[in-house]
Amino acid sequence: MSKPTPLSGFPEFLPEQRIIEQQVVATLARTFELHGFANIETRAVEPLDQLLRKGETSKEVYVLRRLQARDDEHSDTSKDKGLGLHFDLTVPFARYVLENAGKLDFPFRRYQIQPVWRGERPQEGRYRQFTQADIDIVGRDSLSPHHDAEIARVMLDALGRLAQPDLLGLPGFRLQVNNRKLIQGFYAGLGAPDVDEVMRLVDKLDKLAPEEVHRLLVAEAGLTGDQADACLALAGIHATDDSFVDRVRALGVSHDLLEEGLEELAGLIRACAPLNSERVRIVADLSIARGLDYYTGTVFETRLDGYESLGSICSGGRYDALASDGRNTYPGVGISLGVSRVLVPLLQRGALVADRKVPSVVLVAVTDEESRPAAEAIATALRARDIACETHPDAAKFGKQIRHAERRGIPYVWFCQQDGSGEVKDIRSGNQVPADPDTWQPPSQDLHPRITTEGKQHQ
Amino acid sequence: MSKPTPLSGFPEFLPEQRIIEQQVVATLARTFELHGFANIETRAVEPLDQLLRKGETSKEVYVLRRLQARDDEHSDTSKDKGLGLHFDLTVPFARYVLENAGKLDFPFRRYQIQPVWRGERPQEGRYRQFTQADIDIVGRDSLSPHHDAEIARVMLDALGRLAQPDLLGLPGFRLQVNNRKLIQGFYAGLGAPDVDEVMRLVDKLDKLAPEEVHRLLVAEAGLTGDQADACLALAGIHATDDSFVDRVRALGVSHDLLEEGLEELAGLIRACAPLNSERVRIVADLSIARGLDYYTGTVFETRLDGYESLGSICSGGRYDALASDGRNTYPGVGISLGVSRVLVPLLQRGALVADRKVPSVVLVAVTDEESRPAAEAIATALRARDIACETHPDAAKFGKQIRHAERRGIPYVWFCQQDGSGEVKDIRSGNQVPADPDTWQPPSQDLHPRITTEGKQHQ
Repeated sequence: MSKPTPLSGFPEFLPEQRIIEQQVVATLARTFELHGFANIETRAVEPLDQLLRKGETSKEVYVLRRLQARDDEHSDTSKDKGLGLHFDLTVPFARYVLENAGKLDFPFRRYQIQPVWRGERPQEGRYRQFTQADIDIVGRDSLSPHHDAEIARVMLDALGRLAQPDLLGLPGFRLQVNNRKLIQGFYAGLGAPDVDEVMRLVDKLDKLAPEEVHRLLVAEAGLTGDQADACLALAGIHATDDSFVDRVRALGVSHDLLEEGLEELAGLIRACAPLNSERVRIVADLSIARGLDYYTGTVFETRLDGYESLGSICSGGRYDALASDGRNTYPGVGISLGVSRVLVPLLQRGALVADRKVPSVVLVAVTDEESRPAAEAIATALRARDIACETHPDAAKFGKQIRHAERRGIPYVWFCQQDGSGEVKDIRSGNQVPADPDTWQPPSQDLHPRITTEGKQHQ
Repeated sequence: MSKPTPLSGFPEFLPEQRIIEQQVVATLARTFELHGFANIETRAVEPLDQLLRKGETSKEVYVLRRLQARDDEHSDTSKDKGLGLHFDLTVPFARYVLENAGKLDFPFRRYQIQPVWRGERPQEGRYRQFTQADIDIVGRDSLSPHHDAEIARVMLDALGRLAQPDLLGLPGFRLQVNNRKLIQGFYAGLGAPDVDEVMRLVDKLDKLAPEEVHRLLVAEAGLTGDQADACLALAGIHATDDSFVDRVRALGVSHDLLEEGLEELAGLIRACAPLNSERVRIVADLSIARGLDYYTGTVFETRLDGYESLGSICSGGRYDALASDGRNTYPGVGISLGVSRVLVPLLQRGALVADRKVPSVVLVAVTDEESRPAAEAIATALRARDIACETHPDAAKFGKQIRHAERRGIPYVWFCQQDGSGEVKDIRSGNQVPADPDTWQPPSQDLHPRITTEGKQHQ
């Protein structure tokens, strides 16, 4: 077999990169659990008719076929027909809620961290398999708006932990929030003939110049120049507190839906403001619309500081009907963090680096093959005290064994003496001291691989 | 949308079952890391020609196709052609080693816990998606036999933690080991005309009566009756120590390969014997052959006590060439635990049960909507001290809020008093005491959901 080459769109990590992804995922999972979110995993496949229910994404679905399927097996009468890989975690979650509704307690909080697949044509920054971390709260028939604020608070807490400089040290995040009721009510109050078309055009502000959007609002959405001015003025409002309410009112538009949206968004911003920090902050940004998605109230987008070209790396919002089975409707609010979307560029650039390639804190040196059981006994004693370690594969010269540790970033080498006593060497400082495997304890910062950032390395 | 029904062969868990799977996976991962194994994850897909390299499993592969693929896209000239979902974690690992050989340090220890897919026809106990936990050690050009013992020791350690009654309380495990060199050398020394055919037939002993296997050895493998007797006598030997060596020698067959196999197996059993416990033990079992797989030395199978009908739930062995790229050969030894294969039956039978459906230790009661920020502040203080909690969704009567906690298995309800002080109630005992969110600490056994077993519940 010749050397295989990577598959475009299917990024994979080296062990020292995977350590970073593991720590990020563990941090997210623990934060979600601290907020009472239960974990679920759904199967990778859904029936094709479910995946295509909303039409828009059909081009991106990978369809499965058994290699040895009989010709008739994928015909309309076959049960195996029409399975596709999920392209997000929302469609599977909605199906899971309906399938298990009788066994779940509502409001139901769940988090889900899994890969998703999209049959994209390979191109820069588009992945065909990538990991998402989703949190959602779903109610039966009703769900109070304070859960929208809860979702924002949970994600702010999680992003804050990722960005904490002495932990993982990711760049900062800016969570942008808007409310569909607010903008739709505003456009309706303004007298726009086609509210959805206005929303679709205003959503282009991140790609087109304001003058061009203004032109389109007049040409395609049938607005007057003044109406288009008002829409752009609304989209220009952003604030880290509820001061945006007065600025919207100053535009002189009134509509019941607008009032409802203003109240919901102001409530959310007030509930979240205490969580703002230097690295992570929430902003009411009235330009956010989430284009084609079926949100009915709050909408979220998120920018990663210094990586704005990635677009929104954490998006979501409120659905009045996440799912519905005829008897009940299940409203939901959620947000989805693109774990791969954030980490692949950071790791490929070397912006985050682990100081070890292996979990081991200690390499137990082997003096000669006969004493391997003694080395194993040391390792077993250390493991019993939750200290990860490995023994050297052979009885090479100690210099070679130390280099084995150095290459992997293992900070300590343990030497067993003839008389059964031992010494442990910190190979960074060269410091070597007598040690007992039943009591020796490394400093807590050495217990697990540490993440360093570009900045920290250069300090 | 009508209520969806489960897809046969794609088992999913309820949140309270998933908690058990999470704890099992975390226990496995931590044990592997304590032994210095680095984690990797590989993409779900491999090129079809790689998946089919060994021929045998072709019928089980799921092939991917983009739904909107152009007609020519899956033709021979297309790059998108021929991607399939991996059916195990060994093929992807071998590919990963070749692809990244220049960036890995050998011997390379890795663990990998991921789903795999097999396009099986739906039937009892056969899954089309299931999770495996694999550990492997791979060398470049050589790998000492003591790593075979290391793999066994690591898995014994992991299984021992799963079976520990006061932790997860899974049933006991019996790890059965044999060595291909031993049996192939024995058959060759015996003068068998087709050693592989003898191995294939002896491997049927778990399905056929010994008399029938004897008949086949004579009829299909060309053995004399005495030779067939000797093969069955060899397969009948098992021992928890190296006493099997003398029993094999007593059969009077000699061959260099047999001697090599005896020495390797005896060394492995001696290195592992100290890890035997009441719940988990290793046995030299000379009937184990692992049929069609390409092992070249040590082979492993594992039985779950009381669930022998599941067959082997943890299998593996030594490959002289896990991978090869023309310049280098990469010998490996590994073992793969069928996480779903063990857990799906245990959870479906209710043999393991979590005492909570959510991670929350505390439900913070809400007195009225105006005081929700005060309840949130209590929750934030508890979370800062790593205590998971949630606030009640509305200001219902306290009796209803307590039932909300009961239904989810949350052990504590926190009541905020008018004056800012608080009281916490253990709803199991009814005991209620004044508490400060900055200092209150639940007993450590209440910090995370606990697993109870059938046996424990009935005590």
